[in-house]
Amino acid sequence: MDRRSFFKKAGTTGVGAVAASALAAPAIAQENPKIAWRMTSSFPKSLDTIYGAADDIAKHLSAATDGNFTIQPFAAGEIIPGLQAADAVSAGTVEAAHTCSYYFVGKDPTYAIGTAIPFGLNGRLTNAWFYEGNGNKLMNEFYATQGIYGLPAGNTGAQMGGWFRKEINTLDDLKGVKMRIAGLAGQVISKLGVIPQQIAGGDIYPALEKGTIDASEFVGPYDDLKLGLHKVAKYYYYPGWWEGGPTVHAFFNLEKWNSLPKHYQAALTDACAFANTNMMAKYDMKNPPALKQLVSEGATLRPFSQEIMEACFQASLGIYAEISAANPYFKKIYEDQTAFKRDAYLWMQLSEYTFDTFMMIQQRAGKI
Amino acid sequence: MDRRSFFKKAGTTGVGAVAASALAAPAIAQENPKIAWRMTSSFPKSLDTIYGAADDIAKHLSAATDGNFTIQPFAAGEIIPGLQAADAVSAGTVEAAHTCSYYFVGKDPTYAIGTAIPFGLNGRLTNAWFYEGNGNKLMNEFYATQGIYGLPAGNTGAQMGGWFRKEINTLDDLKGVKMRIAGLAGQVISKLGVIPQQIAGGDIYPALEKGTIDASEFVGPYDDLKLGLHKVAKYYYYPGWWEGGPTVHAFFNLEKWNSLPKHYQAALTDACAFANTNMMAKYDMKNPPALKQLVSEGATLRPFSQEIMEACFQASLGIYAEISAANPYFKKIYEDQTAFKRDAYLWMQLSEYTFDTFMMIQQRAGKI
Repeated sequence: MDRRSFFKKAGTTGVGAVAASALAAPAIAQENPKIAWRMTSSFPKSLDTIYGAADDIAKHLSAATDGNFTIQPFAAGEIIPGLQAADAVSAGTVEAAHTCSYYFVGKDPTYAIGTAIPFGLNGRLTNAWFYEGNGNKLMNEFYATQGIYGLPAGNTGAQMGGWFRKEINTLDDLKGVKMRIAGLAGQVISKLGVIPQQIAGGDIYPALEKGTIDASEFVGPYDDLKLGLHKVAKYYYYPGWWEGGPTVHAFFNLEKWNSLPKHYQAALTDACAFANTNMMAKYDMKNPPALKQLVSEGATLRPFSQEIMEACFQASLGIYAEISAANPYFKKIYEDQTAFKRDAYLWMQLSEYTFDTFMMIQQRAGKI
Repeated sequence: MDRRSFFKKAGTTGVGAVAASALAAPAIAQENPKIAWRMTSSFPKSLDTIYGAADDIAKHLSAATDGNFTIQPFAAGEIIPGLQAADAVSAGTVEAAHTCSYYFVGKDPTYAIGTAIPFGLNGRLTNAWFYEGNGNKLMNEFYATQGIYGLPAGNTGAQMGGWFRKEINTLDDLKGVKMRIAGLAGQVISKLGVIPQQIAGGDIYPALEKGTIDASEFVGPYDDLKLGLHKVAKYYYYPGWWEGGPTVHAFFNLEKWNSLPKHYQAALTDACAFANTNMMAKYDMKNPPALKQLVSEGATLRPFSQEIMEACFQASLGIYAEISAANPYFKKIYEDQTAFKRDAYLWMQLSEYTFDTFMMIQQRAGKI
């Protein structure tokens, strides 16, 4: 029995018309379906700034959809091991992950560009490339081959170069250094004689303490302070040239993303954009006091020498040429990002750089 | 007659119950009310990047609310003159504006801090202060006194210092220069003998051409190119020390903001956050090619000398002290932002600055 004949038989046509008019839009219940997704993070809750972006996404999404579309975040290992996040999303085991694309560089080096490649872009220019350049478009052409849709959902800013037990002044000093450093950065620095190691965050401290390794990169002052690495390797080098502005991604199972109502896609897109900007804001608020505490507890700041930076830069160009020769996706995306980088770092030399430089001079002089 | 007695009299209690059950949630229509707001911009449509952020807000808001909550942007002068945006929002003549808080510095100097003050924060640190520092909280304490709720909704990055008909090398060269520059920056630079002028964007070119003024600031390469100022004043100075990272605000009538359903507030908050990041991304994509075109057409780049920068910095400190002595809101917010600035520019000297510096060296050397 269709709706009209039902109401007609019940003798309620008039009443039905009144009710429909009062309720205005009976289809609305369908337009806001209840959807509950899970998001596996590749990070422990102890890294509250980076893990916290998954919470931000969840809170903003639920708030904007009046609680109808929810995402529950899980820490690494709670439902999926941290480094299996991309596989779990590809397979649809979970709908979403909050992770670093470059963790999956072993599957395809193109994953690296989604996060950061050595001597890539700083955080602000990374956003420009993703949002208004070809970044999101090109990376999602690649992610689609993996059954994934990705959105930027956090940035740490330029990371520190990490902790060294001894001073590193020359290229010779790098030879034989056992350093916890992964991915493309490990490949680059191994060309200069460093022996890269892969060690989980929680195991770095004892490895440095026992001398199993000589050096380790991690993130920046706020996160590094929690591990206490300055107590076992006091030289704190900068910059982390392999992570000038790394993006943390929200990964979504492509089919499930495509099945969402358009307004849920829109709300989730904006929630990720908020989390992307806000993670950077959190780091910018939390890193300065952590840096001061590290120094007060004995951390000794050291810039990498120009000689070391130049050698690492040249080594990275060699690796990009090698990968590009074998991987068309990597080549296409790398070349697009590099063309933007060339122009952007021309423009950034003017107002941005000279304004910051002047403010730093005043800061050092104690005038602000 | 109330709803129950109406249905009872119509003999339709049972049918009413069925209908209510089938429709599941008769309150939903209320939860997604149709709301249509107007947003008056302080900018002309020809400034597509800055005006475009109001469009971005409108599109993202409508998309996330499935078209139920819409905001229609209007260019300056279409419904409200550009510089009356805050008054119109305060009075509730329009629900929203997209404008620069510092345009209203004549009403209260505290408005200036919402956008940028001379030698304030760069764009990234501005976001940190608004989102994770006390910026949004403190500015909204002030805006509430004006009947306004404000959210960051765009950033241009560090602006250029503007166009000068003659080279400015020393403090003496500034004396008597008639420059189009407004607000606090005009107050600061007048202490060094510059005669500040207020001229609408469209009137700058003829004023420079005729020599009515000697210099003019505007925005940066992409916007400045449209005005063609390089054809009448070829020296293009940097940085715009009065606008290290100015925020464009979305202003909302406070009562109307408070009357919104919470999930509409949330969707609008995220739409503004997206627009805030995305305007910066647009400028970072569009400024580099515009800069190259300007230079190819004769613009001559010049940095302000350290002597001039130092004198302007000292003059600005004097003005902040004067205003703070008379205005408790300004004092409280200025001191909060300055404390963050001091710490942030300590931290930014390490990885962020040295990474960018190295990349700029490579850019200049033609290696990227």
